[in-house]
Amino acid sequence: MNDQEKGSLLTRGVVRLPEPLRLYRGGELQEVDVAYESWGNLTGGNLILLFTGLSPSAHAASSLVDRSQGWWEGMIGPDKPIDTRRWCVVCLNSLGSCFGSTGPASINPRSGEPYRLDFPALAVEDIARAGYAACQVLKLPRPRMVMGLSLGGMSALAFAAQFPEAVPNLAIISAAAHAWPFAIAIRSLQREAIRSDPAWECGYYAPGKAPVNGMRLARKIGMLSYRSPEEWRQRFGRSRVRQDTSRGVASFGIEFEVESYLEAHADRFVGRFDANSYLYLSHTMDLFDVAEHGNGDVIEVFRRLQTEQALIIGVASDLLFPPEQQRQLARWMRQAGIRVTCEILPNLQGHDSFLIDIERFGGVISGFLDGL
Amino acid sequence: MNDQEKGSLLTRGVVRLPEPLRLYRGGELQEVDVAYESWGNLTGGNLILLFTGLSPSAHAASSLVDRSQGWWEGMIGPDKPIDTRRWCVVCLNSLGSCFGSTGPASINPRSGEPYRLDFPALAVEDIARAGYAACQVLKLPRPRMVMGLSLGGMSALAFAAQFPEAVPNLAIISAAAHAWPFAIAIRSLQREAIRSDPAWECGYYAPGKAPVNGMRLARKIGMLSYRSPEEWRQRFGRSRVRQDTSRGVASFGIEFEVESYLEAHADRFVGRFDANSYLYLSHTMDLFDVAEHGNGDVIEVFRRLQTEQALIIGVASDLLFPPEQQRQLARWMRQAGIRVTCEILPNLQGHDSFLIDIERFGGVISGFLDGL
Repeated sequence: MNDQEKGSLLTRGVVRLPEPLRLYRGGELQEVDVAYESWGNLTGGNLILLFTGLSPSAHAASSLVDRSQGWWEGMIGPDKPIDTRRWCVVCLNSLGSCFGSTGPASINPRSGEPYRLDFPALAVEDIARAGYAACQVLKLPRPRMVMGLSLGGMSALAFAAQFPEAVPNLAIISAAAHAWPFAIAIRSLQREAIRSDPAWECGYYAPGKAPVNGMRLARKIGMLSYRSPEEWRQRFGRSRVRQDTSRGVASFGIEFEVESYLEAHADRFVGRFDANSYLYLSHTMDLFDVAEHGNGDVIEVFRRLQTEQALIIGVASDLLFPPEQQRQLARWMRQAGIRVTCEILPNLQGHDSFLIDIERFGGVISGFLDGL
Repeated sequence: MNDQEKGSLLTRGVVRLPEPLRLYRGGELQEVDVAYESWGNLTGGNLILLFTGLSPSAHAASSLVDRSQGWWEGMIGPDKPIDTRRWCVVCLNSLGSCFGSTGPASINPRSGEPYRLDFPALAVEDIARAGYAACQVLKLPRPRMVMGLSLGGMSALAFAAQFPEAVPNLAIISAAAHAWPFAIAIRSLQREAIRSDPAWECGYYAPGKAPVNGMRLARKIGMLSYRSPEEWRQRFGRSRVRQDTSRGVASFGIEFEVESYLEAHADRFVGRFDANSYLYLSHTMDLFDVAEHGNGDVIEVFRRLQTEQALIIGVASDLLFPPEQQRQLARWMRQAGIRVTCEILPNLQGHDSFLIDIERFGGVISGFLDGL
């Protein structure tokens, strides 16, 4: 590594891949962009590559180039659990997303129009491949650890399965080797909510004319799987935001606090995320199965990794990727000879706990990093 | 009771209430019909009054007048767990439903048009009151037991709270004293799915032009709460009904077995149930709180009952009314001096278990009936 690479070369940017990207389910994608952001300086052996969940951008934390709060602000930074005085973190916006990386809302160079549903079938493997290719363009050294949250955990597994030499250590948080049917059902209904909105126009909605109602409902259905019934019970109970004042007249608007909470989440989401991106990324999570890389034998896949240590974190109240899936992942990795630290945390905030309980997740993650 | 009442007077019919029904949330309803069906003969002290869940009709079991299978066919009949050689069962179609009882799809006598959203605000208490009034028209004796499943369990509680002298024994199955926020959220999203369908026309869809897409999605969202993740995992795993054959081309149709299963449930539901009825009945479940009958003091409500024995059944995997709610109900009733049998069954089929595992539920119910 030369001096230039040790400096703050990386901060934030978009990489254009020099070659077309061959896709896992066939075909290829031309002129692929991958957006990234980074924190800390490369000092050799200190690179952490971070793959995100379905909806976040690469802006995981604030920095000199973007002082706005990131989605993992409490986790990444000087003196934070992932201490950027020691570690250099590079976060990648997933291929198929709409925050700088190429996705369905990007311009198709062949037509000059947005891809929309002409965007090719996307796989989690492609998110990993695009990330790998971007790292090569950036001339990044071998990561010390590849890390992913939710969909990002799947991306990190797909990265390790396809580029085993690049993953000496692995951290998989609130993810799984594949999805179970309840999670598939919940995502399928979110996609149906979007596709049922006439404004979706079979995917060919005009920019600025997004299927807002479908996206709102999709986000709300998603929230059923991102948090937990017990959290909501303790937090909202049966509290109302509005008491029925129109005696005798039926009305079906927002009434309970939990409904108003879902409404607020929907408000924050629509306008920010592209509906087709949501369909593509959501669908990749249903289809992904790391066992495909070993003809159905997941232990064989993990045996081929060059990963020494893996950190696996799950949450007891996670409905989307329930804790049995992280235990399963840990068991399979151990059977393949990987040294695994598996923590199932008792949080009530469900799948989203990693965004909320920085103290508990941070403790586990920094402990693992200290041991590398 | 005279000889006529001992015979098979009851079988199936619709009762027109002689008086307008005063409604719990204000106003009144004119010319109210209540549909019912019955099995077995009244012999004195052997009447069981049955309130149903949100979507079934009063046709709980086949009989001489309707030989088609009922929704609780295995439970009610000669030599079945609720043995109609001993018991006379009367099942009531809920007020607000669309299977013979007055509801939003019924003709408003004032306008000659269907009520639609001019149907007044409906409460679980009104379902109970309409049922009580219908029993009076039918000159039914005091029930030996009032029984309810899901929404019907709430109706039975509302019946007991409003007519304590009429409920010497009570059976509450897969229900609760009120809904918790996760259940409210799931129902709220079902209603949003219907209301977001442009075909809903703000409630004023023409007969035969129902908001089919919204109803389909609503039913599928409902299924997330009627069964359990573990059942689906064991039953469907990651099995596909269709393998992706169009390499490289994105598609978002039915692919996994769990999606096809939801599709089949949606198919069976639409066309059969009125969308506005669904909105009204679903909403009553969110609003109901038995504690309202004691100014917020649920034990006070139960103390005023004249109920000797109560049977409470819940299911460990129920997401809609989780077992802690049945335990809570049992605790509150015991504190009020009621003799309670509370069984939490280990079924994996979630909230709907009572429709499926007739053997286990039947054993508990017939055991309770034997002890009356």
